[in-house]
Amino acid sequence: MSAIFGKEILDYIYNLFSLEDEVLKEMERFGKENDFPIIDRYSGSFLNLITKIKKPELVVELGSGFGYSAYYFAKALENGKVVLIDYQERNIERARYFFEKGGLTDKAEFRVGDAVEIAKEYKDIDILFLDLEKLRYLEAVKTLEENLSEDAIIIADNVLWHGNILSETDRKAERLREFNSYMSERYRSIIIPVGDGLLLSVK
Amino acid sequence: MSAIFGKEILDYIYNLFSLEDEVLKEMERFGKENDFPIIDRYSGSFLNLITKIKKPELVVELGSGFGYSAYYFAKALENGKVVLIDYQERNIERARYFFEKGGLTDKAEFRVGDAVEIAKEYKDIDILFLDLEKLRYLEAVKTLEENLSEDAIIIADNVLWHGNILSETDRKAERLREFNSYMSERYRSIIIPVGDGLLLSVK
Ligand SMILES: C[S@@+](CC[C@H](N)C(=O)[O-])C[C@H]1O[C@@H](n2cnc3c(N)ncnc32)[C@H](O)[C@@H]1O
Ligand SMILES: C[S@@+](CC[C@H](N)C(=O)[O-])C[C@H]1O[C@@H](n2cnc3c(N)ncnc32)[C@H](O)[C@@H]1O
Repeated sequence: MSAIFGKEILDYIYNLFSLEDEVLKEMERFGKENDFPIIDRYSGSFLNLITKIKKPELVVELGSGFGYSAYYFAKALENGKVVLIDYQERNIERARYFFEKGGLTDKAEFRVGDAVEIAKEYKDIDILFLDLEKLRYLEAVKTLEENLSEDAIIIADNVLWHGNILSETDRKAERLREFNSYMSERYRSIIIPVGDGLLLSVK
Repeated sequence: MSAIFGKEILDYIYNLFSLEDEVLKEMERFGKENDFPIIDRYSGSFLNLITKIKKPELVVELGSGFGYSAYYFAKALENGKVVLIDYQERNIERARYFFEKGGLTDKAEFRVGDAVEIAKEYKDIDILFLDLEKLRYLEAVKTLEENLSEDAIIIADNVLWHGNILSETDRKAERLREFNSYMSERYRSIIIPVGDGLLLSVK
C-alpha cells in the first residue's frame, strides 16, 4: 500500500461523507459524556453502505452497547432486522430509547445476555458484527460459523488495536493477530485502515 | 476519524489479505517495467470483495489499461461479465492476453474506444468503475447515470489525488473535489483512504 494520509485529508473525508442524523448526534454526545467506546462515524458510514449493498435479512451484533453501531445497520435495512445483544441491561434499555426516538424499533430486536450464547439461537445470519471483548473474537466466529447464511459477511471492529496490532508484548494484540490470520485464511477478507481498523470478510 | 496508521501496519494488512494469483503478479511486473499506472493490490482486493458481496450481472470499467483492475472484478464474478474499455488498442490486446492466461475471457468483453461513448451502449450497469482521465470523472458519471441499474454501485480510483486533493493550485484536485462533492450529495458515499483513495458510492 502506498499513501498514508494525514489528518487534514481524513477530516475532509469524514466531513464530506458523514451520515447526518439528530439521534446519531445525541448518541455521540452520550458516548462522549459517559466515556463509552463506540465505533467512529466513518466506520458507521461504512457499515451503513455495506448494508445497503448487501441487503441482508438478518444482522446480528455481538456487543451492542447503547446501539450506536446498530443504528447504522438499521437505517440501511429495507426488510431485515438487526439483533442487538449486550450483557448489560442498562445498555440495551438505552439502545431501545434511541431506536424509538429514531423510529427504528420495527427493524430491531433487543436482547440481554452473553452475545455468543444468544447469537447461537439465530440461523442464516447475513451480517455478523463483532464488537465484544477482543479476547473472544476468534471463539465467537468459530462458534457461530454454522449459523451464517451461505454468503454471509463478517465485520469486526478494532482489529488494528489502536495501532498496536504488531506489539509483541500485548496479549490482546497477539489474540487479535490470531483472529486476523484465521479470517484471512478462511475467508476473503480486508481491513479498512480507519478508526481502529475494521475487518470485512466474505464467506 | 481517529487513527492514522504507519507503514508497518499498512504492510501487515497488505501482506495478510492480498489475493494470490500468478497472472496478477505477472501483470504487476508488466506495470512496473513499463511504468504503467494500475490500482494497488489492496484496492484490487477491495474491488474483488465488493464484487463478491454485490453479485453484479454487469460491470463496466472506464479506462481499463491492460486489465489489472478488471481481473479482480472478473475473478469475483459468478454469472456476470466485466466490460473493459480503453482507447488504446494495444492495452486492450494485452488485457485479452492476460485474461486468456487466467482463463477468464468468458467473463469479459473487450472494447476499444472512448470509454464514456462506449459505456452508453450498456443498460443496467450494476458496477461502474472510473479510472479514466480525472478531468472527466464528473462528466462520465452524469452522462451514464441513466445507464445504471436501480441499486448500482459506482467506484472511482484516485479520488484523494496522491494526497493533494486539498491543493488550491492544482486544477485536477479542484475538479476531483467537485466530483467528490457531487457524489456525496447525490449518493451514499465513502472514500477508502488507501492507495490513492477509492470512492465507493451507492445509489
Ligand atoms: C465497544 S462496546 C460496543 C459499542 C457498540 N458496538 C457501538 O459501536 O455502538 C462493547 C460492548 O460489548 C458488551 N460486551 C462485551 N462482551 C460481551 C459479551 N460476551 N456478551 C454481551 N455483551 C458483551 C459490553 O457490555 C459493551 O457494551
Ligand atoms: C490508470 S490507467 C487504467 C488502469 C487500470 N484501471 C488498472 O488499474 O489496471 C488509465 C487508462 O485509461 C485510458 N483512458 C483514459 N481516458 C480514456 C477515455 N476517455 N476512454 C478510454 N480510455 C481512456 C488510458 O489509455 C489508460 O490506459
